[in-house]
Amino acid sequence: MAYYETSRAPGRHFLQIPGPTNVPDRVLRAMDNPTMDHRGPDFGRLGLEILANLRRVFQTEGPVVIYPASGTGAWEAALTNTLSPGDAVLMCRTGWFASLWQEMAVRLQLVPQFIDTDWRRGADVDAIGAALAKDTAHRIKAVCVVHNETSTGCTSRIDEVRAAMDAARHPALLLVDTISSLASIDYRHDAWGVDVTVAGSQKGLMLPPGLSFNAVSAKALKAAESAKLPRSYWDWRPMLAANETGYFPYTPGTNLLYGLDAAVKMLLEEGLVNVFARHDRHAEATRRAVRAWGLEVQCADPRHYSSSLTAVRVPEGHSADRLRAVILEKYNMSLGNGLGQLKDRVFRIGHLGDLSDLQLIGTLGGIEMGLRAAGVPHRAGGAQAAIDYLAGNA
Amino acid sequence: MAYYETSRAPGRHFLQIPGPTNVPDRVLRAMDNPTMDHRGPDFGRLGLEILANLRRVFQTEGPVVIYPASGTGAWEAALTNTLSPGDAVLMCRTGWFASLWQEMAVRLQLVPQFIDTDWRRGADVDAIGAALAKDTAHRIKAVCVVHNETSTGCTSRIDEVRAAMDAARHPALLLVDTISSLASIDYRHDAWGVDVTVAGSQKGLMLPPGLSFNAVSAKALKAAESAKLPRSYWDWRPMLAANETGYFPYTPGTNLLYGLDAAVKMLLEEGLVNVFARHDRHAEATRRAVRAWGLEVQCADPRHYSSSLTAVRVPEGHSADRLRAVILEKYNMSLGNGLGQLKDRVFRIGHLGDLSDLQLIGTLGGIEMGLRAAGVPHRAGGAQAAIDYLAGNA
Amino acid sequence: MAYYETSRAPGRHFLQIPGPTNVPDRVLRAMDNPTMDHRGPDFGRLGLEILANLRRVFQTEGPVVIYPASGTGAWEAALTNTLSPGDAVLMCRTGWFASLWQEMAVRLQLVPQFIDTDWRRGADVDAIGAALAKDTAHRIKAVCVVHNETSTGCTSRIDEVRAAMDAARHPALLLVDTISSLASIDYRHDAWGVDVTVAGSQKGLMLPPGLSFNAVSAKALKAAESAKLPRSYWDWRPMLAANETGYFPYTPGTNLLYGLDAAVKMLLEEGLVNVFARHDRHAEATRRAVRAWGLEVQCADPRHYSSSLTAVRVPEGHSADRLRAVILEKYNMSLGNGLGQLKDRVFRIGHLGDLSDLQLIGTLGGIEMGLRAAGVPHRAGGAQAAIDYLAGNA
Amino acid sequence: MAYYETSRAPGRHFLQIPGPTNVPDRVLRAMDNPTMDHRGPDFGRLGLEILANLRRVFQTEGPVVIYPASGTGAWEAALTNTLSPGDAVLMCRTGWFASLWQEMAVRLQLVPQFIDTDWRRGADVDAIGAALAKDTAHRIKAVCVVHNETSTGCTSRIDEVRAAMDAARHPALLLVDTISSLASIDYRHDAWGVDVTVAGSQKGLMLPPGLSFNAVSAKALKAAESAKLPRSYWDWRPMLAANETGYFPYTPGTNLLYGLDAAVKMLLEEGLVNVFARHDRHAEATRRAVRAWGLEVQCADPRHYSSSLTAVRVPEGHSADRLRAVILEKYNMSLGNGLGQLKDRVFRIGHLGDLSDLQLIGTLGGIEMGLRAAGVPHRAGGAQAAIDYLAGNA
Repeated sequence: MAYYETSRAPGRHFLQIPGPTNVPDRVLRAMDNPTMDHRGPDFGRLGLEILANLRRVFQTEGPVVIYPASGTGAWEAALTNTLSPGDAVLMCRTGWFASLWQEMAVRLQLVPQFIDTDWRRGADVDAIGAALAKDTAHRIKAVCVVHNETSTGCTSRIDEVRAAMDAARHPALLLVDTISSLASIDYRHDAWGVDVTVAGSQKGLMLPPGLSFNAVSAKALKAAESAKLPRSYWDWRPMLAANETGYFPYTPGTNLLYGLDAAVKMLLEEGLVNVFARHDRHAEATRRAVRAWGLEVQCADPRHYSSSLTAVRVPEGHSADRLRAVILEKYNMSLGNGLGQLKDRVFRIGHLGDLSDLQLIGTLGGIEMGLRAAGVPHRAGGAQAAIDYLAGNA
Repeated sequence: MAYYETSRAPGRHFLQIPGPTNVPDRVLRAMDNPTMDHRGPDFGRLGLEILANLRRVFQTEGPVVIYPASGTGAWEAALTNTLSPGDAVLMCRTGWFASLWQEMAVRLQLVPQFIDTDWRRGADVDAIGAALAKDTAHRIKAVCVVHNETSTGCTSRIDEVRAAMDAARHPALLLVDTISSLASIDYRHDAWGVDVTVAGSQKGLMLPPGLSFNAVSAKALKAAESAKLPRSYWDWRPMLAANETGYFPYTPGTNLLYGLDAAVKMLLEEGLVNVFARHDRHAEATRRAVRAWGLEVQCADPRHYSSSLTAVRVPEGHSADRLRAVILEKYNMSLGNGLGQLKDRVFRIGHLGDLSDLQLIGTLGGIEMGLRAAGVPHRAGGAQAAIDYLAGNA
Repeated sequence: MAYYETSRAPGRHFLQIPGPTNVPDRVLRAMDNPTMDHRGPDFGRLGLEILANLRRVFQTEGPVVIYPASGTGAWEAALTNTLSPGDAVLMCRTGWFASLWQEMAVRLQLVPQFIDTDWRRGADVDAIGAALAKDTAHRIKAVCVVHNETSTGCTSRIDEVRAAMDAARHPALLLVDTISSLASIDYRHDAWGVDVTVAGSQKGLMLPPGLSFNAVSAKALKAAESAKLPRSYWDWRPMLAANETGYFPYTPGTNLLYGLDAAVKMLLEEGLVNVFARHDRHAEATRRAVRAWGLEVQCADPRHYSSSLTAVRVPEGHSADRLRAVILEKYNMSLGNGLGQLKDRVFRIGHLGDLSDLQLIGTLGGIEMGLRAAGVPHRAGGAQAAIDYLAGNA
Repeated sequence: MAYYETSRAPGRHFLQIPGPTNVPDRVLRAMDNPTMDHRGPDFGRLGLEILANLRRVFQTEGPVVIYPASGTGAWEAALTNTLSPGDAVLMCRTGWFASLWQEMAVRLQLVPQFIDTDWRRGADVDAIGAALAKDTAHRIKAVCVVHNETSTGCTSRIDEVRAAMDAARHPALLLVDTISSLASIDYRHDAWGVDVTVAGSQKGLMLPPGLSFNAVSAKALKAAESAKLPRSYWDWRPMLAANETGYFPYTPGTNLLYGLDAAVKMLLEEGLVNVFARHDRHAEATRRAVRAWGLEVQCADPRHYSSSLTAVRVPEGHSADRLRAVILEKYNMSLGNGLGQLKDRVFRIGHLGDLSDLQLIGTLGGIEMGLRAAGVPHRAGGAQAAIDYLAGNA
């Protein structure tokens, strides 16, 4: 019997990492339907329906490309479709994942220019504006921002980034990673003038990993015509051509698409506005629990609080990883680990995707018991603080 | 899309009625394997394995009969296999389900003699002893006790009932309903000298409803030879004959048997002693929450506290059913209703089956929020009291 | 890994016994949704929908009772709800299952009067008429007929039985077993004046075993008022009362009901007329294969050919059971065995339920290969004869 | 209700395209387990087990890289990890997919040199040898061969290609596409000295699409050190580093990995030798059916017959696509279409993956009925010819 078929303990595992998230039964059941002919007549109808619904989730009228790939692949697609070797890109290193994207850019022979933060807030909009203003030669071809830094729980203000770019009258493309924000935190591809939005299936979209996305503006499509980075698998053009009739240029991830169909319908049935409000409310409840414990939220700027996850700092001299191990062992819950400079210093609570008040309360209760079991100094009452907030803000 | 395919709200439904309980994924996945030939060679091997494992759950060396039927059917089987029209049976009316069993006995032309309680404790062992002592003619052919009254959350002491029968040197059969206790609360068919144990699939056995059980003593088998109530579907004899080789005399509930196979293996992997300890611990945590709210547990005798559910009294002038409706609507959790004389006076929290600390904390958090939303007078802090207890007793 | 989780061989098992039948994926997926609260508000809506759709399958305007039980239980329900100890019942022993029903009647203290056949045709309508005409005292309280004898593949003409009863102006109830005909062979509860129709889930209804049914006429309901056989689990009256609002008097087989909901919708989407025509066509193709092999169909009267299964006689000196064992071992297909006097003399091909032309052709091809492997004398070309017929009658 | 949740017709869809293939229930059930933490301790153990078992399927001692991507991605990975812009590659254009791989090479700024065939046989080994012999400057860096051309049903002899390269003493890498042959047709990564083997999940591996693979030789790993094509997502090095402990450098396709775990276990339980023999036998049975129909197999060289699919030519003046549409509509079976120059001229029968004799017979029966329904000239008796062959070669 394989590991995934047996539980570590009685009851349901709490998968409270900031993605993959808890996949709803409706999505799992959609996914385990028999694989169909991806060139047959039924498939095209399914493809068209998914593609149409998906646009609404990205809040765009334009095309959304679906890759059978992890989110990392969609990062690569965003870069290789729009840029040429040696192009300068302005990248905001807001955390671990922003750093990985930048490393990818280097490997793809781009020339990143960095704007760093202390990993406790979102992108520095003023610094972006300044860098662009300085770039009068328009050497910078793209600005890359991670909307929600999964490693820190800080959300960048994409609307403000856009405004800064507009203020600088700079023609660079705006590429935004929404892997851990899409379908969890309000995000508007069209309204915010984003050129390429990068997303993945395993977070707010409530699917297993294995699909990723590029929403693409007309400006980005135009850039693709002259972009010189070699590309084939990630090339938007054959994708968009085949998508016209609901098909794909190579074999799509059929069963994950079934799940995507179900997941997107669930989001639209709930209503995106309600989805975002639910995430905001759960995030606030989580922060109240953290404060009640006397612990510190990693994100230091309330304007940048993430609604999809909360990274929590453990007191000096204590190990976040040992805490997580204790919680997994005793309470059958997975929490996210600290990454890069935050290794062992924070644990991350995912409260995105298909989650209810009761699951969140169970999550916070489990953390509180874990803090006690692991001997991490704290005050009791975090879960109760969350209950009080949630009850008062139903 | 059918009702069962869509959630009332984001996240997983909390099914915290005292049965059916939350069916583990491993059991659901076992159940949805293709139906097999119940007369083919593979089936016999499966049947023998299930029957052997099942005996361990009932703590018996003797046979356990499996019916494709609800628990109500196993009640009927216990009576019709052992008794004759006009037979007197001593029945302890400890609550709603005990009353239903007694009504069934009347319909089957038996003559129940009642021992009542105030529905706030288990069976009155002294009264049983007295009734038997008085029955010097041995007119009473069976004593019927519900081990765990699902309507009240009171557990009767079967060991003491046995002792009372022995003290009275009375030859009556002992028939025990363990529908909401088996695989949740320690129960020993052989050691306690029970003649027929009645059980169902949808509680501690963690299955959907649809299977029920009779564990049968040698004395009960002997009684079956002369019992005159007409019977066919429920007849033990062709069952036991066919079970010898792992088969059944009529078509068994194949896919539910797959689930039973998985469920019984899960219980044995966890270890029955651990299963019982887990239920005891969750029950104590629940009662602490109830007390912290300032509410009253229906069971008035701590020796009879149930480890599989807790019935909670709502203050006079408040409606338990409205509270449950609010909780279902706002928090996507089902709780058990009050039955019979307890209608609208109690709500029942199921904490049996496949349940973790975190799910229990979520459950209690949801109730606390519901009490507030429904305007039921209470003190905050119930979930927190449970967390404190659970953390201190891991 | 349990037996049901591993295949005997590559590819999908062919379950071509005359029930349980191949359960469609849509039904299996419905069934593995989480168990819901059977007393909650959503359940009642589901119950009402299922009960309404189910009536259409029985072609009745009256109630259909659903039991969490095998078909054998619905036999018992039909008898105990309508009859009293000592009542005479006229039973047509058309095969093994009719004989089992008669044995049950005896165990329930009824007095069956038999009309035998040679097991190669349906019920003898003339003999029924004669027996009723002779019974001027109206001692016979019920006529029991198996619509489709699963052991022989002979279908009785219920319309003619009804006509014979009418001709004799006899007031007996008409009880009909449709376990292996409902939703496969045209059957009209109302139009044919049937009083109780007995059915099960695991044949034409395409479900696993575990649910069974009684469709009930007004006359049968009236008879239930004075019937004296003790009954409780099977009692129609509390069922019908609870069904009014979509609920059940005791815990229903929730997950099997999910499957029933899906299965009945599939039948109605296909259209009952199309379902029956499909079964007729598959049956004719199968008989053509049998004749091409030079083997003999057990049913000797073409007016009684069954459209849900075909029993095939093996030549003298050869073993049908060995043939079946060879086919299971080499070709991963289950066929039905001979029962009672037909033990080892026939094998039975189930062609009912969710079956396509291609699955039927595979079935017949497997039998042809098995005949050869087992050394049973036959001519090649059976599968081809079926293909020729099916292609010409698409 | 989505398209994938409803059947086009009663019975199970026959997915007889040459991939995706029919996914076994055991694999689908593995896949619908809850997604787990891909950085948690259980995941590493699962990863190591899968990676070890997978090597056996590729018949290699070396590493196998798993991508969350379609097979097309693994093509790209093979090229970008080993080659530099402007490198010459010798590519055998044996059919549509070989042509697509060559187009990809061009887009990735490689310089393919072509060896064409008439699409009715495998790679021209003599021409490969001659081209390499002529390339004394060793300008050619890689020889790219498609082991089994899915568009034509012709299998190239990789052992002979290897021999020709050895005879020419040419240092080029050997890159082989086994997308439609792995786990269906004997293939030996190590013994045949292949440097990169490209494979996908949705054919012989019996999974849905969404995973693809590179098996990598030491020589290929060395080439990766100096290869200059930009790469990040496809880069072997971080993959192999993370795989050491069973993890992945970016989020893996968790649920597809569950399915892979199950699928690889099924293959090893059956035994690769038996898997190959089963495919050979089914392929021969299929060709016999084709000949019996009087139709022509696209593959003109028996040494190159494919054991995973058979492409069949339709007579002049008839449309293969119309035939396929008729078969889909009337018989609920999907067949593969003609691609490129074979568009509408051939239909392709997939007989790979999880398939039994009976499913193959049903497949061939459906085609025969389709030929008749579509008015394609043919002789009856194809399915029967297959039955005769299969029965004689069990």
